[in-house]
Amino acid sequence: MKILITGGAGFLGQRLAKRLLARGTLDGQPVTELLLLDVARPADAHLLADPRVRAETGDIAERAVLERCIDGETRAIFHLAAIVSGQAEAEFDLGMRINLDASRTLLEVCRASGHAPRVVFTSSVAVYGGVLPDIVQDDTALNPQTSYGTQKAIAELLLCDYSRRGFVDGRVLRLPTISVRPGKPNAAASSFASGIIREPLNGERSVCPVDGDTRLWLLSPKSAVDALIAGCEIDRAEFGMRPIINLPGLSVSVNEMVAALREVAGDEVVSRIDWQRDERIAKIVASWPGAWDTSRAQQLGLTGDRSFADVIRAYIEEMRG
Amino acid sequence: MKILITGGAGFLGQRLAKRLLARGTLDGQPVTELLLLDVARPADAHLLADPRVRAETGDIAERAVLERCIDGETRAIFHLAAIVSGQAEAEFDLGMRINLDASRTLLEVCRASGHAPRVVFTSSVAVYGGVLPDIVQDDTALNPQTSYGTQKAIAELLLCDYSRRGFVDGRVLRLPTISVRPGKPNAAASSFASGIIREPLNGERSVCPVDGDTRLWLLSPKSAVDALIAGCEIDRAEFGMRPIINLPGLSVSVNEMVAALREVAGDEVVSRIDWQRDERIAKIVASWPGAWDTSRAQQLGLTGDRSFADVIRAYIEEMRG
Repeated sequence: MKILITGGAGFLGQRLAKRLLARGTLDGQPVTELLLLDVARPADAHLLADPRVRAETGDIAERAVLERCIDGETRAIFHLAAIVSGQAEAEFDLGMRINLDASRTLLEVCRASGHAPRVVFTSSVAVYGGVLPDIVQDDTALNPQTSYGTQKAIAELLLCDYSRRGFVDGRVLRLPTISVRPGKPNAAASSFASGIIREPLNGERSVCPVDGDTRLWLLSPKSAVDALIAGCEIDRAEFGMRPIINLPGLSVSVNEMVAALREVAGDEVVSRIDWQRDERIAKIVASWPGAWDTSRAQQLGLTGDRSFADVIRAYIEEMRG
Repeated sequence: MKILITGGAGFLGQRLAKRLLARGTLDGQPVTELLLLDVARPADAHLLADPRVRAETGDIAERAVLERCIDGETRAIFHLAAIVSGQAEAEFDLGMRINLDASRTLLEVCRASGHAPRVVFTSSVAVYGGVLPDIVQDDTALNPQTSYGTQKAIAELLLCDYSRRGFVDGRVLRLPTISVRPGKPNAAASSFASGIIREPLNGERSVCPVDGDTRLWLLSPKSAVDALIAGCEIDRAEFGMRPIINLPGLSVSVNEMVAALREVAGDEVVSRIDWQRDERIAKIVASWPGAWDTSRAQQLGLTGDRSFADVIRAYIEEMRG
């Protein structure tokens, strides 16, 4: 089985790649070729050394690049490449080009291939916005308040229609905010949701740009990768008329995140958080749901994390390992 | 004030044009130039004789055509041009090109003009679908089951984001199915909703492709034009975070439509309806809501029709006049 991961050099892409290689199979078939497409090659030399891995670089919005990576043998595509929320808000045209046009071109290349490959799109809490119920339901209307959320919502609609028409076998997984991400801060409005844990644990100071009672909907990197694989393996027939799943998350306030950090790592670590409200970020984050109903995901066998303290412990363990 | 109507040679476009000319003003300003853009010139010689009217022909998906029609003086744009539901389902690429790409290009040309003109998009019952409540609410999720509905939903999302960013002053009016449309049947899946009234009144036979208990959500042409003008004149501030209005309609079953026709025109006219179920059409129509909540529209001063029998009477009167 040939698999493509767009955004394959990204944090989630590399992680997914390693898991797929370690499993050796997807949907019961052996993983024979794993294509990682991104603007740069993955940093992980270990990953690149695997004979099944092929790294391709290029601009995903160019059709020729996607045509080089998708052929009649490509059975599954994980489309993770994206311009993150903060950057898509600052650079409108770039966000449209990558989050919308590249997603559409990917679907078009799949359509032209004629064999309806499985396509897993990742979407986001950012498709919601405006006045929201405490717990967003599967049938709550999308009302994105950012260009990133708009572009993701449009890509969802395209994927659903291309699936309905049989051009692809698509599924949309709406991810909670991923935390704790390793590495450096990025331009996502949600970057702080990892930063206020990661940096203090590293002995560095970190700014929290939102109020402590801001409620977030979080998923650990490990659970995100689990969900991507499980979401890809679910049989199409189980989706019914709507191949979209809101993945299970943890609904925690920023204060509760900090309390979990204190529980796991102590007062000194917590004291490295600086509270400096940033209106631009606070406004974007406040427009996202703090929780959504996960019964559909659970029916399909998708689960999340147990507690945020556990997520922090798993992060620490991984960093040590 | 310079106004552009795309689809200006269409049934609704010409009607809107005549009303605007008769009123002489829009949003308190005199109508000085009314541009009707379409693939062909409007048929109505009377309309073309008005010195304020300019008819432009061209492919609306070409940026140069839109640039010719939109400049810094264009204060209001009614974007009515569309590939109808049945045709967009049969000709996927054409629907994408007109319903999605042309809408986006129109927004881009407005953005480039730099003066945020008022843009009224018409959308449709077809953005809904799947398992729906009896009365669709403003916060019911979109789940289009046709490519037409998908393209309209995407155009809505784009309009909302371009408005939020201040590129345009946009508003989306979701229209019920328009009935009774004069003229000929078209490729819309809802074409029968006018045909089963219009053709029998003309002494011709007409096929009803759906079951009698199918519930439709209808609006007369007159009320549609009223709503377009009122929707354009509403102050932006009144929309809040979501410039989308579900317009008021009449919730009637096909049996009730036929009963109204009998009430107005008698048994002989009704006997000209042939009941021949068409699975393709029945499936599309069944995916649309039979009614939606109209409290928001009513708060904004938008009203619909009183009864379907009245709508038929108004249609007959107009045909006589």
